[in-house]
Amino acid sequence: MPSPQPREVIRVTYRLETSGDIAAIAAKIASDQSTGTFVDVPGETPELKARVAARVTAVRPLASVDRPSWPEACATGPVRRADVDIEFPLDAVGTDIAALTTIALGGAFSIKGLSGLRIVGLTLPAAFGRDHPGPQFGIAGSRRLTGVYDRPIIGTIVKPALGLRPLETAALVRDLVEADVDFIKDDEKLMSPAYSSLEDRVGAIMPIILDHEQKTGKKVMYAFNLTSHDPERMVRDHDIIVKAGGNAAVVAIQSIGFGGMAFLRKRSSLALHAHRAGWDVLTRHPGLGFDFAVYQQLWRLLGVDQFQINGIGVKYWEPDESFVASFEAVTTPIFSDADRVLPVAGSGQWGGQAPETYRRTGRTVDLMYLCGGGIVSHPGGPAAGVRAVRQAWEAAVADIPLAVYAETHPDLAQSIAKFGGSAKDA
Amino acid sequence: MPSPQPREVIRVTYRLETSGDIAAIAAKIASDQSTGTFVDVPGETPELKARVAARVTAVRPLASVDRPSWPEACATGPVRRADVDIEFPLDAVGTDIAALTTIALGGAFSIKGLSGLRIVGLTLPAAFGRDHPGPQFGIAGSRRLTGVYDRPIIGTIVKPALGLRPLETAALVRDLVEADVDFIKDDEKLMSPAYSSLEDRVGAIMPIILDHEQKTGKKVMYAFNLTSHDPERMVRDHDIIVKAGGNAAVVAIQSIGFGGMAFLRKRSSLALHAHRAGWDVLTRHPGLGFDFAVYQQLWRLLGVDQFQINGIGVKYWEPDESFVASFEAVTTPIFSDADRVLPVAGSGQWGGQAPETYRRTGRTVDLMYLCGGGIVSHPGGPAAGVRAVRQAWEAAVADIPLAVYAETHPDLAQSIAKFGGSAKDA
Repeated sequence: MPSPQPREVIRVTYRLETSGDIAAIAAKIASDQSTGTFVDVPGETPELKARVAARVTAVRPLASVDRPSWPEACATGPVRRADVDIEFPLDAVGTDIAALTTIALGGAFSIKGLSGLRIVGLTLPAAFGRDHPGPQFGIAGSRRLTGVYDRPIIGTIVKPALGLRPLETAALVRDLVEADVDFIKDDEKLMSPAYSSLEDRVGAIMPIILDHEQKTGKKVMYAFNLTSHDPERMVRDHDIIVKAGGNAAVVAIQSIGFGGMAFLRKRSSLALHAHRAGWDVLTRHPGLGFDFAVYQQLWRLLGVDQFQINGIGVKYWEPDESFVASFEAVTTPIFSDADRVLPVAGSGQWGGQAPETYRRTGRTVDLMYLCGGGIVSHPGGPAAGVRAVRQAWEAAVADIPLAVYAETHPDLAQSIAKFGGSAKDA
Repeated sequence: MPSPQPREVIRVTYRLETSGDIAAIAAKIASDQSTGTFVDVPGETPELKARVAARVTAVRPLASVDRPSWPEACATGPVRRADVDIEFPLDAVGTDIAALTTIALGGAFSIKGLSGLRIVGLTLPAAFGRDHPGPQFGIAGSRRLTGVYDRPIIGTIVKPALGLRPLETAALVRDLVEADVDFIKDDEKLMSPAYSSLEDRVGAIMPIILDHEQKTGKKVMYAFNLTSHDPERMVRDHDIIVKAGGNAAVVAIQSIGFGGMAFLRKRSSLALHAHRAGWDVLTRHPGLGFDFAVYQQLWRLLGVDQFQINGIGVKYWEPDESFVASFEAVTTPIFSDADRVLPVAGSGQWGGQAPETYRRTGRTVDLMYLCGGGIVSHPGGPAAGVRAVRQAWEAAVADIPLAVYAETHPDLAQSIAKFGGSAKDA
């Protein structure tokens, strides 16, 4: 007789902290987030509990600490910590991302008696892979659309972030396209203000992209920022981009929400470049929120193709090891290679971080390397800036120190002279 | 000559914490979130800055503290704190909620050199009122739909949270309807799993609601939970509810995101009852995230009608004073009385909290009072449970101590006997 099929479960790992009893609080989460309420109610039979109840399947104690993560808890002794696995029956949750979030990821943060809670693991059953579209382009599609193989896709951002009118933006874009960059994006903060509507921006920029393609055969990928709280507006803007011959868009995923992303993806023929603006609030305190490895799965299932994850030596708070972990997360299959997405290293980048980026991310060139000022503020102009970044990556892949490679590559040399003060690996 | 029109601005108040210089970090936020980048770039003219730059308009120092809110910061001295007002030109942002979020609310959390950041104030210009639908029903509409005036709308929740099949749910609903409750809702965790699809639930429940209306003239408001990451699915489910004669829906707002809410609201003819599952992660640590007074404005503009905000003496972590502040927030006009929404007090409620709720929220009965176990686990059954809650509110409004009122109201007396141990005001 065949053994019974194991029931399909969603496994969530919570990093709990309490001055009370870890096992009791773990059991409370499992109960509260499935069947429980504060008093016994009619109908809560053992049979029903078996059908839908979440179960604590592992408790892995961690070292206690002296201080609670959240000041609300006046701990009078050591603060206990543990990683706790809780399994939710797939039948009780289904594969809806909003259901998953409400039941297994969000609700637990309201529970009393905790002084810290972070969700550090999420393992989904295969049904999630079947029921969600996943990335439409991902790594392979981004390479195909840009025509860049065997090295990182080199990107840049139009700066200043806000304030340029479409023709001013277009003039900068012309310089960048002629500089032979592979990818250009709107700043995540530039959406469709009165002085630069997305439609006008598309109208000013796309002819430059297409003209350059005509002349050189190279189509620079331009990601227009179509972020809006209104999914229909995003689709309208999407269609404007497609009609004008564009092939990519920026979405500030936190700001559009799951609903916006799902609606857009269903209609999208653009590579969707995810910016995480606002994500830090969910991850910056290590005793609260989510590991990126958890969060990014949801957005990949919903259809992100390219994921901004900061980089080495960024101008923001995020430490290098967090970037390295994020890089691994977005390139590790959830269910198959097709759901891997293109990691985008950005923020304060110039060629200087190439060697360390390469070394610490598994010696791959499957990434986008996004330099703002690092390209446009190069002393020799943007074209020299792009060349310098490519040279830095050539050196990195060949294990040649940048300073040595710079002896025969003046663009890189100029770049080191200008930006090297802040480099970790020049 | 008339004085020039003051430019319209969005004002955000950030509660900053740093071991560095408050004024410098405030200026950095203003710069980073509008025009800035890490090196000077071509095109960033003074004229452009004047057009779109955010400006620090006030710095109100707070007492320093010894410990940083976030452990990443190894403070070597007092941690400085201040409330800082930054004004963003409306022209630079527009009225899109995702733009507002990306530019003014989300991005600042990534900035280096902070050891704490919480957004504690948001003042929007009138254009936001014109460009967003706001609540369709709010307080007046919720009263009209339920036919309840001059006292709180008494609601309950079908429990257990998960696991009941539609006919099992319907049997409980029949009891609750016959108990003369005004409002019933699905648990926020029950969406549309295989064992209880929303369609089947509507099919089982609405005939009971309508039958009761036929017999008594009273239409109990049932809020079906149509939360989904897929806005079109929500609208499909919305239409099923409408077609069956329903008039309300639960949405887990954090899980559907701004996009889901905007899409649904545009097509909705139901009262939208907002559950905040997951919100706690954004507010529980006082040195991180958002005050509810900020967050709730966005959802009201997008169209929430009824807002769950916990209550007095809840089973969750949230302290009473936070509930009181939330109550004031959702009932204070943003632009006009029409954008006020119905506060929903819930979690661990029974009649016992009525006097304190009434006293601390401006002696109003314009609220929904939601009791789960507090109604269904009443020793005399749900009908006695509903009567007991109404009696508690009668006593509260008349300033009669519950214990005194219970002498002549046996349902309330039974309620006190069963639940009074956990009451703050019985």
